Amino acid sequence: MEIFYSDQVNEGFLRLPAEETAHCMRVLRHRPGDEIDVIDGRGTLYHCVLQEEAPAGGTQKRGKGEEQTALARIVSSEASWGSHPYRLTLAVCPTKNPDRYEWMAEKVTEVGVDTLAPVIGERSERRVLKTDRLHRILLSATKQSLKGAIPELLEPQTVMDFIAGMGEAREAAAGELRLIAYCSDEVKPRAFIMDLLREVAETPVSALTGIPHVTVLIGPEGDFSPAEVQAAMAAGFVPVSLGSSRLRTETAAITAAEAVYLSIYE
Amino acid sequence: MEIFYSDQVNEGFLRLPAEETAHCMRVLRHRPGDEIDVIDGRGTLYHCVLQEEAPAGGTQKRGKGEEQTALARIVSSEASWGSHPYRLTLAVCPTKNPDRYEWMAEKVTEVGVDTLAPVIGERSERRVLKTDRLHRILLSATKQSLKGAIPELLEPQTVMDFIAGMGEAREAAAGELRLIAYCSDEVKPRAFIMDLLREVAETPVSALTGIPHVTVLIGPEGDFSPAEVQAAMAAGFVPVSLGSSRLRTETAAITAAEAVYLSIYE
Repeated sequence: MEIFYSDQVNEGFLRLPAEETAHCMRVLRHRPGDEIDVIDGRGTLYHCVLQEEAPAGGTQKRGKGEEQTALARIVSSEASWGSHPYRLTLAVCPTKNPDRYEWMAEKVTEVGVDTLAPVIGERSERRVLKTDRLHRILLSATKQSLKGAIPELLEPQTVMDFIAGMGEAREAAAGELRLIAYCSDEVKPRAFIMDLLREVAETPVSALTGIPHVTVLIGPEGDFSPAEVQAAMAAGFVPVSLGSSRLRTETAAITAAEAVYLSIYE
Repeated sequence: MEIFYSDQVNEGFLRLPAEETAHCMRVLRHRPGDEIDVIDGRGTLYHCVLQEEAPAGGTQKRGKGEEQTALARIVSSEASWGSHPYRLTLAVCPTKNPDRYEWMAEKVTEVGVDTLAPVIGERSERRVLKTDRLHRILLSATKQSLKGAIPELLEPQTVMDFIAGMGEAREAAAGELRLIAYCSDEVKPRAFIMDLLREVAETPVSALTGIPHVTVLIGPEGDFSPAEVQAAMAAGFVPVSLGSSRLRTETAAITAAEAVYLSIYE
Protein backbone atom coordinates (compact mmCIF):
# COMPACT_ATOMS: atom_id res chain seq x y z
CA MET A 1 0.00 0.00 0.00
CA GLU A 2 1.59 3.26 -1.18
CA ILE A 3 0.74 6.32 0.90
CA PHE A 4 1.21 9.95 -0.11
CA TYR A 5 1.16 13.06 2.02
CA SER A 6 -0.58 16.36 1.50
CA ASP A 7 -0.56 19.51 3.61
CA GLN A 8 -3.16 21.18 1.38
CA VAL A 9 -6.59 19.66 1.89
CA ASN A 10 -9.78 21.60 1.36
CA GLU A 11 -13.28 21.40 0.00
CA GLY A 12 -13.17 17.90 -1.37
CA PHE A 13 -9.78 18.22 -3.07
CA LEU A 14 -6.17 17.99 -2.02
CA ARG A 15 -2.88 18.86 -3.63
CA LEU A 16 0.33 16.85 -3.31
CA PRO A 17 3.48 18.86 -2.58
CA ALA A 18 6.12 18.91 -5.33
CA GLU A 19 8.23 16.06 -3.91
CA GLU A 20 5.21 13.78 -3.40
CA THR A 21 3.93 14.69 -6.87
CA ALA A 22 7.25 13.70 -8.42
CA HIS A 23 7.19 10.36 -6.59
CA CYS A 24 3.56 9.74 -7.54
CA MET A 25 3.63 10.80 -11.20
CA ARG A 26 7.22 10.30 -12.33
CA VAL A 27 8.47 7.38 -10.21
CA LEU A 28 5.25 5.38 -9.78
CA ARG A 29 3.81 6.67 -13.10
CA HIS A 30 0.32 7.33 -11.80
CA ARG A 31 -2.03 9.03 -14.28
CA PRO A 32 -5.20 11.14 -13.89
CA GLY A 33 -8.04 8.79 -12.99
CA ASP A 34 -5.82 6.57 -10.78
CA GLU A 35 -6.89 6.03 -7.18
CA ILE A 36 -4.35 7.04 -4.52
CA ASP A 37 -4.29 7.13 -0.71
CA VAL A 38 -3.14 10.31 0.97
CA ILE A 39 -2.61 11.25 4.63
CA ASP A 40 -2.83 14.77 5.94
CA GLY A 41 -0.26 14.10 8.66
CA ARG A 42 -2.81 15.03 11.30
CA GLY A 43 -4.53 11.65 11.51
CA THR A 44 -6.79 11.33 8.47
CA LEU A 45 -6.41 9.07 5.44
CA TYR A 46 -8.07 10.19 2.21
CA HIS A 47 -8.97 7.90 -0.66
CA CYS A 48 -8.65 10.06 -3.74
CA VAL A 49 -8.73 10.08 -7.54
CA LEU A 50 -5.99 11.95 -9.38
CA GLN A 51 -7.40 14.79 -11.52
CA GLU A 52 -6.47 16.36 -14.81
CA GLU A 53 -4.72 19.62 -14.04
CA ALA A 54 -7.00 22.37 -12.76
CA PRO A 55 -8.54 24.50 -15.50
CA ALA A 56 -6.61 27.64 -16.47
CA GLY A 57 -7.72 30.61 -14.45
CA GLY A 58 -8.66 28.38 -11.49
CA THR A 59 -7.38 28.97 -8.00
CA GLN A 60 -4.71 26.33 -8.49
CA LYS A 61 -3.08 28.15 -11.42
CA ARG A 62 0.65 28.08 -11.12
CA GLY A 63 3.11 30.76 -12.12
CA LYS A 64 6.02 30.07 -14.44
CA GLY A 65 8.88 28.21 -12.85
CA GLU A 66 6.77 26.75 -10.06
CA GLU A 67 7.13 23.02 -9.50
CA GLN A 68 4.37 20.71 -10.59
CA THR A 69 1.88 19.65 -7.90
CA ALA A 70 -0.82 17.05 -8.44
CA LEU A 71 -4.49 17.63 -7.69
CA ALA A 72 -6.71 14.82 -6.38
CA ARG A 73 -10.43 14.60 -5.65
CA ILE A 74 -11.32 13.13 -2.24
CA VAL A 75 -13.69 10.18 -2.51
CA SER A 76 -13.79 9.12 1.15
CA SER A 77 -11.78 9.50 4.34
CA GLU A 78 -10.85 7.66 7.54
CA ALA A 79 -10.16 9.69 10.69
CA SER A 80 -7.68 8.47 13.33
CA TRP A 81 -6.18 6.12 10.77
CA GLY A 82 -3.56 3.84 12.34
CA SER A 83 -3.88 5.68 15.64
CA HIS A 84 -2.97 4.31 19.06
CA PRO A 85 -4.97 4.59 22.29
CA TYR A 86 -2.47 6.80 24.15
CA ARG A 87 -0.55 10.03 23.71
CA LEU A 88 3.19 9.59 24.07
CA THR A 89 5.77 12.35 24.30
CA LEU A 90 9.39 11.22 24.20
CA ALA A 91 11.95 13.82 25.28
CA VAL A 92 15.29 12.36 24.27
CA CYS A 93 18.80 13.79 24.50
CA PRO A 94 20.88 13.66 21.28
CA THR A 95 23.15 10.69 20.79
CA LYS A 96 26.81 11.30 19.96
CA ASN A 97 26.22 9.72 16.55
CA PRO A 98 23.23 11.39 14.80
CA ASP A 99 22.45 8.18 12.86
CA ARG A 100 21.42 6.57 16.12
CA TYR A 101 18.93 9.35 16.84
CA GLU A 102 17.47 9.08 13.36
CA TRP A 103 17.09 5.33 13.68
CA MET A 104 15.37 5.80 17.01
CA ALA A 105 13.02 8.39 15.47
CA GLU A 106 12.06 5.94 12.75
CA LYS A 107 11.46 3.05 15.15
CA VAL A 108 9.39 4.95 17.71
CA THR A 109 7.26 6.32 14.86
CA GLU A 110 6.57 2.81 13.61
CA VAL A 111 5.67 1.67 17.09
CA GLY A 112 3.64 4.77 17.94
CA VAL A 113 4.66 8.17 19.34
CA ASP A 114 2.97 11.58 19.21
CA THR A 115 5.67 14.07 20.06
CA LEU A 116 9.44 13.78 19.84
CA ALA A 117 11.25 16.46 21.82
CA PRO A 118 15.02 16.66 21.36
CA VAL A 119 16.35 17.92 24.69
CA ILE A 120 19.88 18.96 25.60
CA GLY A 121 21.04 17.84 29.01
CA GLU A 122 23.68 19.52 31.13
CA ARG A 123 25.88 16.50 30.52
CA SER A 124 25.06 16.14 26.80
CA GLU A 125 28.19 15.92 24.67
CA ARG A 126 26.25 16.75 21.54
CA ARG A 127 24.38 20.01 21.96
CA VAL A 128 23.15 20.54 18.40
CA LEU A 129 20.68 18.45 16.43
CA LYS A 130 19.61 19.09 12.86
CA THR A 131 15.91 18.57 12.46
CA ASP A 132 15.59 18.67 8.61
CA ARG A 133 16.49 15.02 8.15
CA LEU A 134 14.43 14.04 11.18
CA HIS A 135 11.31 15.62 9.66
CA ARG A 136 11.78 13.55 6.51
CA ILE A 137 12.36 10.38 8.52
CA LEU A 138 9.23 10.91 10.61
CA LEU A 139 7.12 11.44 7.47
CA SER A 140 8.58 8.42 5.74
CA ALA A 141 8.13 6.14 8.77
CA THR A 142 4.57 7.39 9.27
CA LYS A 143 3.64 6.50 5.69
CA GLN A 144 5.52 3.22 5.80
CA SER A 145 3.80 2.08 8.99
CA LEU A 146 0.35 3.09 7.72
CA LYS A 147 -0.47 5.87 10.15
CA GLY A 148 -2.33 9.10 9.45
CA ALA A 149 -0.58 11.33 11.98
CA ILE A 150 3.07 12.38 11.70
CA PRO A 151 4.69 12.73 15.13
CA GLU A 152 5.27 16.32 16.09
CA LEU A 153 8.97 17.23 16.24
CA LEU A 154 9.77 20.01 18.68
CA GLU A 155 12.70 22.35 18.27
CA PRO A 156 15.69 21.35 20.41
CA GLN A 157 15.60 22.90 23.88
CA THR A 158 17.37 22.29 27.17
CA VAL A 159 16.12 19.63 29.55
CA MET A 160 15.42 22.40 32.08
CA ASP A 161 13.32 24.39 29.56
CA PHE A 162 11.40 21.27 28.59
CA ILE A 163 10.59 20.55 32.22
CA ALA A 164 9.64 24.18 32.87
CA GLY A 165 7.31 24.01 29.85
CA MET A 166 5.46 21.08 31.42
CA GLY A 167 4.14 23.41 34.12
CA GLU A 168 4.00 23.07 37.87
CA ALA A 169 3.73 19.82 39.75
CA ARG A 170 0.08 19.08 40.18
CA GLU A 171 -2.27 16.44 41.41
CA ALA A 172 -1.46 13.59 39.07
CA ALA A 173 -4.35 13.64 36.66
CA ALA A 174 -5.72 10.12 36.29
CA GLY A 175 -4.08 8.69 33.20
CA GLU A 176 -1.25 11.20 33.01
CA LEU A 177 2.19 9.84 33.68
CA ARG A 178 5.46 11.78 33.71
CA LEU A 179 8.48 9.51 33.80
CA ILE A 180 12.21 10.13 33.90
CA ALA A 181 14.43 7.21 33.01
CA TYR A 182 17.40 7.71 35.25
CA CYS A 183 20.35 5.32 35.40
CA SER A 184 22.30 6.42 38.42
CA ASP A 185 21.74 4.88 41.80
CA GLU A 186 21.53 8.31 43.42
CA VAL A 187 17.74 8.28 43.30
CA LYS A 188 16.19 5.18 44.85
CA PRO A 189 13.87 3.40 44.73
CA ARG A 190 12.90 3.70 41.10
CA ALA A 191 9.73 2.03 39.87
CA PHE A 192 9.86 -0.40 36.96
CA ILE A 193 8.20 1.38 34.04
CA MET A 194 5.89 -1.58 33.32
CA ASP A 195 4.38 -1.48 36.81
CA LEU A 196 3.37 2.17 36.44
CA LEU A 197 2.03 1.64 32.92
CA ARG A 198 0.01 -1.37 34.01
CA GLU A 199 -1.71 0.79 36.62
CA VAL A 200 -2.69 3.29 33.95
CA ALA A 201 -3.77 0.55 31.56
CA GLU A 202 -5.96 -0.95 34.24
CA THR A 203 -7.62 2.34 35.21
CA PRO A 204 -11.26 2.18 34.06
CA VAL A 205 -11.85 4.45 31.05
CA SER A 206 -14.58 6.20 33.04
CA ALA A 207 -11.98 7.40 35.55
CA LEU A 208 -9.78 8.96 32.85
CA THR A 209 -10.13 12.48 31.51
CA GLY A 210 -9.07 11.22 28.09
CA ILE A 211 -6.69 8.64 26.68
CA PRO A 212 -3.60 8.07 28.84
CA HIS A 213 -0.90 10.66 28.26
CA VAL A 214 2.63 9.50 28.96
CA THR A 215 5.77 11.64 28.86
CA VAL A 216 9.18 9.99 29.16
CA LEU A 217 12.49 11.84 29.60
CA ILE A 218 15.55 9.94 28.34
CA GLY A 219 18.96 11.29 29.29
CA PRO A 220 22.30 11.55 27.50
CA GLU A 221 25.14 9.01 27.66
CA GLY A 222 26.38 10.75 30.84
CA ASP A 223 22.88 10.64 32.42
CA PHE A 224 20.89 13.59 33.77
CA SER A 225 22.54 15.91 36.27
CA PRO A 226 21.20 15.79 39.83
CA ALA A 227 19.74 19.30 39.29
CA GLU A 228 17.80 18.07 36.27
CA VAL A 229 16.45 15.08 38.16
CA GLN A 230 15.38 17.34 41.04
CA ALA A 231 13.63 19.76 38.66
CA ALA A 232 11.87 16.89 36.93
CA MET A 233 10.69 15.40 40.20
CA ALA A 234 9.42 18.81 41.31
CA ALA A 235 7.38 18.88 38.08
CA GLY A 236 5.81 15.54 38.89
CA PHE A 237 8.18 13.24 37.02
CA VAL A 238 8.63 9.83 38.60
CA PRO A 239 12.08 8.17 38.33
CA VAL A 240 11.70 4.85 36.54
CA SER A 241 13.90 1.97 35.59
CA LEU A 242 13.74 0.44 32.12
CA GLY A 243 14.90 -2.91 33.48
CA SER A 244 18.25 -4.42 34.29
CA SER A 245 20.00 -4.07 30.94
CA ARG A 246 22.32 -1.13 30.35
CA LEU A 247 20.79 0.51 27.29
CA ARG A 248 22.19 3.15 24.98
CA THR A 249 20.22 6.41 24.82
CA GLU A 250 18.44 5.47 21.60
CA THR A 251 17.69 1.96 22.85
CA ALA A 252 16.26 3.39 26.07
CA ALA A 253 13.94 5.60 24.02
CA ILE A 254 12.80 2.66 21.90
CA THR A 255 12.30 0.56 25.04
CA ALA A 256 10.15 3.27 26.62
CA ALA A 257 8.03 3.53 23.46
CA GLU A 258 7.67 -0.26 23.35
CA ALA A 259 6.68 -0.37 27.02
CA VAL A 260 3.84 2.08 26.39
CA TYR A 261 2.82 0.37 23.13
CA LEU A 262 2.80 -3.09 24.71
CA SER A 263 0.98 -1.94 27.87
CA ILE A 264 -1.77 0.35 26.57
CA TYR A 265 -3.77 -1.14 23.71
CA GLU A 266 -7.33 -1.64 22.62
CA MET B 1 33.59 0.64 32.05
CA GLU B 2 35.73 -0.85 29.31
CA ILE B 3 35.21 -4.55 28.68
CA PHE B 4 37.50 -6.89 26.77
CA TYR B 5 36.83 -10.33 25.40
CA SER B 6 38.87 -13.49 25.60
CA ASP B 7 38.23 -16.93 24.16
CA GLN B 8 41.30 -18.38 25.89
CA VAL B 9 40.71 -18.75 29.61
CA ASN B 10 42.45 -21.38 31.69
CA GLU B 11 44.11 -22.06 35.00
CA GLY B 12 43.91 -18.59 36.44
CA PHE B 13 45.10 -16.78 33.32
CA LEU B 14 43.52 -15.56 30.11
CA ARG B 15 44.85 -14.28 26.84
CA LEU B 16 43.29 -11.50 24.77
CA PRO B 17 42.98 -12.16 21.03
CA ALA B 18 45.13 -9.98 18.74
CA GLU B 19 42.39 -7.44 17.97
CA GLU B 20 41.45 -7.01 21.64
CA THR B 21 45.12 -6.78 22.57
CA ALA B 22 45.67 -3.98 20.06
CA HIS B 23 42.69 -2.08 21.45
CA CYS B 24 43.80 -2.63 25.03
CA MET B 25 47.52 -1.91 24.68
CA ARG B 26 47.85 0.40 21.68
CA VAL B 27 44.58 2.38 21.72
CA LEU B 28 43.86 2.53 25.45
CA ARG B 29 47.57 2.30 26.35
CA HIS B 30 47.18 -0.18 29.15
CA ARG B 31 50.43 -1.49 30.66
CA PRO B 32 51.39 -4.61 32.62
CA GLY B 33 50.03 -4.21 36.15
CA ASP B 34 46.83 -2.45 35.00
CA GLU B 35 43.50 -3.95 36.03
CA ILE B 36 41.16 -4.90 33.20
CA ASP B 37 37.72 -6.53 32.94
CA VAL B 38 37.31 -9.38 30.49
CA ILE B 39 34.30 -11.47 29.46
CA ASP B 40 34.55 -14.97 28.12
CA GLY B 41 31.45 -14.55 25.96
CA ARG B 42 29.81 -17.45 27.77
CA GLY B 43 28.51 -15.46 30.70
CA THR B 44 31.45 -14.84 33.03
CA LEU B 45 33.24 -11.59 33.79
CA TYR B 46 36.85 -11.78 34.95
CA HIS B 47 38.66 -9.07 36.86
CA CYS B 48 42.29 -9.39 35.77
CA VAL B 49 45.72 -7.84 36.01
CA LEU B 50 47.75 -7.46 32.82
CA GLN B 51 51.01 -9.45 32.97
CA GLU B 52 54.47 -8.98 31.62
CA GLU B 53 54.85 -11.28 28.64
CA ALA B 54 55.12 -14.98 29.51
CA PRO B 55 58.65 -16.17 30.12
CA ALA B 56 60.47 -17.53 27.09
CA GLY B 57 59.96 -21.26 26.72
CA GLY B 58 56.55 -21.10 28.39
CA THR B 59 53.43 -22.52 26.83
CA GLN B 60 52.50 -19.08 25.56
CA LYS B 61 55.63 -18.70 23.44
CA ARG B 62 54.81 -17.28 20.04
CA GLY B 63 56.45 -18.03 16.73
CA LYS B 64 57.89 -15.34 14.50
CA GLY B 65 55.30 -13.25 12.68
CA GLU B 66 52.50 -14.10 15.07
CA GLU B 67 50.41 -11.17 16.26
CA GLN B 68 50.87 -9.96 19.80
CA THR B 69 48.36 -11.21 22.36
CA ALA B 70 48.18 -9.94 25.93
CA LEU B 71 48.27 -12.20 28.97
CA ALA B 72 46.28 -11.37 32.12
CA ARG B 73 46.07 -12.99 35.54
CA ILE B 74 42.53 -13.61 36.84
CA VAL B 75 41.91 -12.05 40.24
CA SER B 76 38.21 -12.77 40.62
CA SER B 77 35.18 -13.61 38.51
CA GLU B 78 31.41 -13.10 38.33
CA ALA B 79 29.27 -15.81 36.72
CA SER B 80 26.04 -14.93 34.86
CA TRP B 81 27.20 -11.35 34.60
CA GLY B 82 24.47 -9.09 33.14
CA SER B 83 22.30 -12.12 32.48
CA HIS B 84 18.51 -12.11 32.09
CA PRO B 85 15.98 -14.49 33.66
CA TYR B 86 14.83 -16.08 30.38
CA ARG B 87 16.23 -17.77 27.31
CA LEU B 88 15.20 -16.05 24.08
CA THR B 89 15.73 -17.35 20.56
CA LEU B 90 14.86 -14.95 17.78
CA ALA B 91 14.55 -16.49 14.31
CA VAL B 92 14.41 -13.54 11.95
CA CYS B 93 14.26 -13.40 8.17
CA PRO B 94 16.83 -11.10 6.48
CA THR B 95 15.74 -7.57 5.70
CA LYS B 96 16.24 -6.24 2.16
CA ASN B 97 18.76 -3.75 3.52
CA PRO B 98 21.44 -5.57 5.61
CA ASP B 99 22.02 -2.44 7.73
CA ARG B 100 18.57 -2.92 9.22
CA TYR B 101 19.39 -6.48 10.26
CA GLU B 102 22.65 -5.37 11.84
CA TRP B 103 20.90 -2.62 13.78
CA MET B 104 18.34 -5.10 14.99
CA ALA B 105 21.09 -7.50 16.07
CA GLU B 106 22.71 -4.74 18.11
CA LYS B 107 19.46 -3.65 19.76
CA VAL B 108 18.22 -7.11 20.72
CA THR B 109 21.65 -7.87 22.18
CA GLU B 110 21.47 -4.76 24.36
CA VAL B 111 17.98 -5.67 25.49
CA GLY B 112 18.74 -9.36 25.97
CA VAL B 113 18.70 -12.30 23.55
CA ASP B 114 20.44 -15.69 23.67
CA THR B 115 20.27 -16.99 20.11
CA LEU B 116 19.82 -15.16 16.83
CA ALA B 117 18.84 -17.45 13.98
CA PRO B 118 18.80 -15.91 10.50
CA VAL B 119 16.10 -17.82 8.63
CA ILE B 120 15.20 -17.62 4.95
CA GLY B 121 11.47 -17.69 4.22
CA GLU B 122 9.87 -18.91 1.03
CA ARG B 123 8.91 -15.31 0.34
CA SER B 124 12.24 -13.77 1.39
CA GLU B 125 13.63 -11.45 -1.26
CA ARG B 126 17.07 -11.55 0.30
CA ARG B 127 18.26 -15.14 0.58
CA VAL B 128 21.86 -14.55 1.64
CA LEU B 129 23.16 -13.01 4.83
CA LYS B 130 26.81 -12.44 5.70
CA THR B 131 27.49 -13.34 9.28
CA ASP B 132 31.05 -11.93 9.69
CA ARG B 133 29.89 -8.41 10.44
CA LEU B 134 27.05 -9.73 12.60
CA HIS B 135 29.50 -11.62 14.81
CA ARG B 136 31.46 -8.41 15.38
CA ILE B 137 28.28 -6.44 16.11
CA LEU B 138 27.05 -9.01 18.64
CA LEU B 139 30.40 -8.96 20.46
CA SER B 140 30.55 -5.18 20.50
CA ALA B 141 26.94 -4.79 21.73
CA THR B 142 27.53 -7.44 24.41
CA LYS B 143 30.53 -5.56 25.78
CA GLN B 144 28.84 -2.19 25.47
CA SER B 145 25.75 -3.33 27.37
CA LEU B 146 27.81 -4.99 30.12
CA LYS B 147 26.84 -8.60 29.57
CA GLY B 148 29.03 -11.65 29.91
CA ALA B 149 27.37 -13.84 27.28
CA ILE B 150 27.54 -13.13 23.55
CA PRO B 151 24.34 -14.21 21.78
CA GLU B 152 24.82 -17.32 19.70
CA LEU B 153 24.54 -16.64 15.97
CA LEU B 154 23.30 -19.60 13.97
CA GLU B 155 24.22 -20.15 10.34
CA PRO B 156 21.44 -19.04 7.97
CA GLN B 157 18.93 -21.80 7.22
CA THR B 158 15.45 -22.01 5.73
CA VAL B 159 12.42 -21.36 7.89
CA MET B 160 11.35 -24.96 7.23
CA ASP B 161 14.72 -26.33 8.40
CA PHE B 162 14.62 -24.17 11.50
CA ILE B 163 11.15 -25.43 12.38
CA ALA B 164 12.16 -29.04 11.69
CA GLY B 165 15.16 -28.54 14.00
CA MET B 166 12.82 -27.57 16.84
CA GLY B 167 11.53 -31.15 16.96
CA GLU B 168 8.04 -32.52 17.08
CA ALA B 169 5.06 -30.77 18.58
CA ARG B 170 4.82 -31.80 22.18
CA GLU B 171 2.97 -31.11 25.34
CA ALA B 172 3.83 -27.51 25.94
CA ALA B 173 6.45 -27.68 28.65
CA ALA B 174 5.62 -25.19 31.39
CA GLY B 175 7.60 -22.07 30.64
CA GLU B 176 8.38 -22.91 27.03
CA LEU B 177 6.73 -20.71 24.46
CA ARG B 178 7.04 -20.99 20.69
CA LEU B 179 5.59 -17.99 18.91
CA ILE B 180 5.24 -17.05 15.27
CA ALA B 181 4.54 -13.40 14.53
CA TYR B 182 2.31 -13.57 11.53
CA CYS B 183 0.77 -10.51 9.88
CA SER B 184 -1.78 -11.89 7.50
CA ASP B 185 -5.41 -12.29 8.53
CA GLU B 186 -5.45 -15.85 7.20
CA VAL B 187 -4.81 -17.30 10.66
CA LYS B 188 -7.24 -16.07 13.29
CA PRO B 189 -7.51 -15.50 16.14
CA ARG B 190 -3.98 -14.59 17.08
CA ALA B 191 -3.06 -13.99 20.68
CA PHE B 192 -1.42 -10.72 21.72
CA ILE B 193 2.18 -11.59 22.60
CA MET B 194 1.96 -9.82 25.97
CA ASP B 195 -0.94 -11.96 27.14
CA LEU B 196 1.01 -15.17 26.52
CA LEU B 197 4.17 -13.78 28.10
CA ARG B 198 2.26 -12.60 31.16
CA GLU B 199 1.01 -16.16 31.68
CA VAL B 200 4.57 -17.45 31.63
CA ALA B 201 5.79 -14.64 33.87
CA GLU B 202 3.07 -15.44 36.40
CA THR B 203 3.76 -19.18 36.46
CA PRO B 204 5.28 -20.01 39.85
CA VAL B 205 8.96 -20.81 39.55
CA SER B 206 8.27 -24.15 41.22
CA ALA B 207 6.10 -25.17 38.24
CA LEU B 208 8.86 -24.43 35.73
CA THR B 209 11.54 -26.86 34.62
CA GLY B 210 13.98 -23.95 34.36
CA ILE B 211 13.87 -20.31 33.33
CA PRO B 212 11.23 -19.54 30.67
CA HIS B 213 12.41 -20.33 27.15
CA VAL B 214 10.81 -18.26 24.42
CA THR B 215 11.32 -18.70 20.67
CA VAL B 216 9.89 -16.14 18.27
CA LEU B 217 9.77 -16.50 14.47
CA ILE B 218 9.70 -13.20 12.57
CA GLY B 219 8.91 -13.33 8.85
CA PRO B 220 10.15 -11.44 5.81
CA GLU B 221 8.57 -8.31 4.29
CA GLY B 222 6.21 -10.57 2.33
CA ASP B 223 5.24 -12.55 5.44
CA PHE B 224 5.50 -16.31 5.95
CA SER B 225 3.95 -18.62 3.37
CA PRO B 226 0.85 -20.56 4.48
CA ALA B 227 2.94 -23.75 4.33
CA GLU B 228 5.48 -22.25 6.74
CA VAL B 229 2.76 -21.17 9.14
CA GLN B 230 1.20 -24.64 9.02
CA ALA B 231 4.56 -26.31 9.68
CA ALA B 232 5.25 -23.94 12.57
CA MET B 233 1.86 -24.59 14.14
CA ALA B 234 2.39 -28.33 13.78
CA ALA B 235 5.63 -27.86 15.73
CA GLY B 236 3.79 -26.11 18.54
CA PHE B 237 4.24 -22.49 17.46
CA VAL B 238 1.36 -20.20 18.42
CA PRO B 239 0.45 -17.37 16.02
CA VAL B 240 0.79 -14.07 17.84
CA SER B 241 0.17 -10.44 17.12
CA LEU B 242 2.74 -7.79 18.06
CA GLY B 243 -0.01 -5.19 18.37
CA SER B 244 -1.83 -2.96 15.94
CA SER B 245 1.11 -1.12 14.35
CA ARG B 246 2.48 -2.34 11.04
CA LEU B 247 6.11 -2.99 11.85
CA ARG B 248 9.07 -3.60 9.56
CA THR B 249 10.82 -6.96 9.97
CA GLU B 250 13.59 -5.54 12.14
CA THR B 251 11.16 -3.52 14.24
CA ALA B 252 9.03 -6.62 14.79
CA ALA B 253 12.11 -8.48 16.04
CA ILE B 254 13.00 -5.65 18.42
CA THR B 255 9.39 -5.47 19.62
CA ALA B 256 9.36 -9.21 20.35
CA ALA B 257 12.64 -8.93 22.30
CA GLU B 258 11.27 -5.95 24.24
CA ALA B 259 8.03 -7.80 25.00
CA VAL B 260 10.01 -10.66 26.57
CA TYR B 261 12.43 -8.30 28.35
CA LEU B 262 9.60 -6.17 29.76
CA SER B 263 7.46 -9.18 30.79
CA ILE B 264 9.95 -11.57 32.35
CA TYR B 265 12.21 -9.96 34.92
CA GLU B 266 13.48 -10.54 38.39
